Amino acid sequence: MFKVNENYLKLPGSYLFSTIAKKVNAFTEAHPDRTIVRLGIGDVTQPLGEPVIRALHDAVAEMAYAETFHGYSPDLGYSFLREAIASGDYKARGCEIEPDEIFVSDGAKSDSGNIQELFSEDSRIAVCDPVYPVYVDSNVMAGRTGTYDPKTGYWSNVIYMPCTAANGFIADLPKEVPDVIYLCFPNNPTGAAITKDRLQDWVDYANKNGSVIIYDAAYEAYISEKDMPHSIYECEGARTCAIEIRSFSKNAGFTGLRLGYTVVPKDLKCGDASLHDMWARRHGTKFNGAPYIVQRAGAACYTDEGRAMIKSLVGYYMENARTIRDGLEKLGYTCYGGVNSPYVWMKTPDGMTSWDFFDYLLENAGVVGTPGSGFGPNGEGYFRLTAFGSHENSKNALERFAKL
Amino acid sequence: MFKVNENYLKLPGSYLFSTIAKKVNAFTEAHPDRTIVRLGIGDVTQPLGEPVIRALHDAVAEMAYAETFHGYSPDLGYSFLREAIASGDYKARGCEIEPDEIFVSDGAKSDSGNIQELFSEDSRIAVCDPVYPVYVDSNVMAGRTGTYDPKTGYWSNVIYMPCTAANGFIADLPKEVPDVIYLCFPNNPTGAAITKDRLQDWVDYANKNGSVIIYDAAYEAYISEKDMPHSIYECEGARTCAIEIRSFSKNAGFTGLRLGYTVVPKDLKCGDASLHDMWARRHGTKFNGAPYIVQRAGAACYTDEGRAMIKSLVGYYMENARTIRDGLEKLGYTCYGGVNSPYVWMKTPDGMTSWDFFDYLLENAGVVGTPGSGFGPNGEGYFRLTAFGSHENSKNALERFAKL
Repeated sequence: MFKVNENYLKLPGSYLFSTIAKKVNAFTEAHPDRTIVRLGIGDVTQPLGEPVIRALHDAVAEMAYAETFHGYSPDLGYSFLREAIASGDYKARGCEIEPDEIFVSDGAKSDSGNIQELFSEDSRIAVCDPVYPVYVDSNVMAGRTGTYDPKTGYWSNVIYMPCTAANGFIADLPKEVPDVIYLCFPNNPTGAAITKDRLQDWVDYANKNGSVIIYDAAYEAYISEKDMPHSIYECEGARTCAIEIRSFSKNAGFTGLRLGYTVVPKDLKCGDASLHDMWARRHGTKFNGAPYIVQRAGAACYTDEGRAMIKSLVGYYMENARTIRDGLEKLGYTCYGGVNSPYVWMKTPDGMTSWDFFDYLLENAGVVGTPGSGFGPNGEGYFRLTAFGSHENSKNALERFAKL
Repeated sequence: MFKVNENYLKLPGSYLFSTIAKKVNAFTEAHPDRTIVRLGIGDVTQPLGEPVIRALHDAVAEMAYAETFHGYSPDLGYSFLREAIASGDYKARGCEIEPDEIFVSDGAKSDSGNIQELFSEDSRIAVCDPVYPVYVDSNVMAGRTGTYDPKTGYWSNVIYMPCTAANGFIADLPKEVPDVIYLCFPNNPTGAAITKDRLQDWVDYANKNGSVIIYDAAYEAYISEKDMPHSIYECEGARTCAIEIRSFSKNAGFTGLRLGYTVVPKDLKCGDASLHDMWARRHGTKFNGAPYIVQRAGAACYTDEGRAMIKSLVGYYMENARTIRDGLEKLGYTCYGGVNSPYVWMKTPDGMTSWDFFDYLLENAGVVGTPGSGFGPNGEGYFRLTAFGSHENSKNALERFAKL
């Protein structure tokens, strides 16, 4: 009789956002007359910009004629896109990243879930607490995390790095050395950004201890303050210790188009084994390239018009972030994030648990957010609100909060 | 110091098609004046059909307005597509498959590479020999295959099922019982199709022995003869032992659009563990849905117009298959496949090895095919030619063969 991967069975409950979706569905079925304001999932709401739409139509038109039809993409991405990324996202910031160190994919979620495959089964991972669930869950599925303690919410073999108001939601360097360190800045869910000096400390730590940093920079476009690095490769020595994951979802609104990329520098090695070559092999074996039309849309983001479009989209959402954060603070709530990030991380009132506040807010205001505890034990007592709604929705949510 | 997944390092050489690409590039650089006829990779060459192009333009247009914009897709696929598939590909053939048993993905390659994750690390897999390399390589990466013997080309812990002219390229039921059996019909690379009776034997064998069949039906649209099942669920009892993988690449020409799906019936269980629920969890954790616009394009394939388009595309390629097969036979070559499949599996002449014939054909005719030995030891002495070129290319290839 065949046997299943029992690591899957260790996963508690279902994926956070599925649970939220089920709760919201149950609520709307029970209250068909009530309207819901969704500030839960980090999904964008504004349409694709004109340069992207035009690039998509043009690329679709190419697919209609044999002379300009495109079949299988190169596994690692079209050169036109890899070159635009290397130049626009890296060389422009003084980072030495070559086009062939960039691996185009169908999104940052796939990459952040799959990247753990490159490491040995007994690797110790370190994650921030709270954390984007995919980093931990993908390692659970691979059998690296030990056993789950439902009382504490912790896995026995994961190094948790608390991110609290006390440390400004920037984890301290871990005492016990991890093999793989997941960092995400600007952070999901707390909205915290890291300065270049502090990130340099992490790079130095990783190089000194032989750790690899998986740096999730999906929200870099939201950085508004100086001294905050947009890429980990702005730090010296990052080429020998860091992998960076980027997304087109939050800057250009590609959540429904699916495009992202991962940078694996050629200098990142363990003995003779090159993580760059291993990731190339993974792409070649288990992935067949991102769609041509979507890669063309991605390339359109690097034109002058495309940059202006991103600036406008990010500006739109950041106005929401200000609306939400300023509004909540005026109502007496304690808030973090929302300055270099589309996420506002609010303290739940009256010592309510995150899920109690989720239910309370849904029932009494019809507003959906994300319970902080869904991101880890240190998220308990917090609640994540996203700025990805429309202006109207964000204002509407605040009006509903005001009536609580 | 971090450690890598050493299973990756066991993989010999690079992925078959990368090796071919490198050889062809070297040849074209050395002979810039020579033209190449490519019948190697199974990539389509004809443009997307009118119903698909229209669906893409329409969906792109929707993405330009907030009212009709689509962000994250449901992880498992949009209902409109899952319902079209359940009805068009299954209910229409008398198979009991429900929409929520269909998992929409970015293609059959990803699914066939990732599906092994559901099984325990000590699972024994069985593959046909020759075989599509992804099945084996993805299991190598997961550490299930033991050690590689470069002399024989076999992994110590894989059950190989020879497919030879003697058994009509349909493997015999294995004596040693595997946990997971990979089958692909119509077959890549041999082009062999299986009758319903023979496939029923496999389903009965799997149910009797507690094995799971991963059934790759990416080429089902090419079946031209009666009695050949288009889906494994045409066989009785397949719901308790089989997963089926399908693609839009070869029927509708989506190799550059990326769309496929996998069927995991709810009856497929190991004790309390449901492979359906596990695959849903994997999709929810490591995948973020196929692009909305591509799913709309997929749905367009199930309209009357879409069906006519597929019939026309498949007919176009099958004319090439006839050209190639009939032409080669007239020249005295021994050929298989090409009747229910876009692949012609020819015996190399004069006892040449597959790679020697590859080099000989490239040098002397400028024709690129795929060496049979790249698909496994029993592919040695064979050569795969695909019908996915244009009519002109296929005829041109035959003219070049005639001059050898």
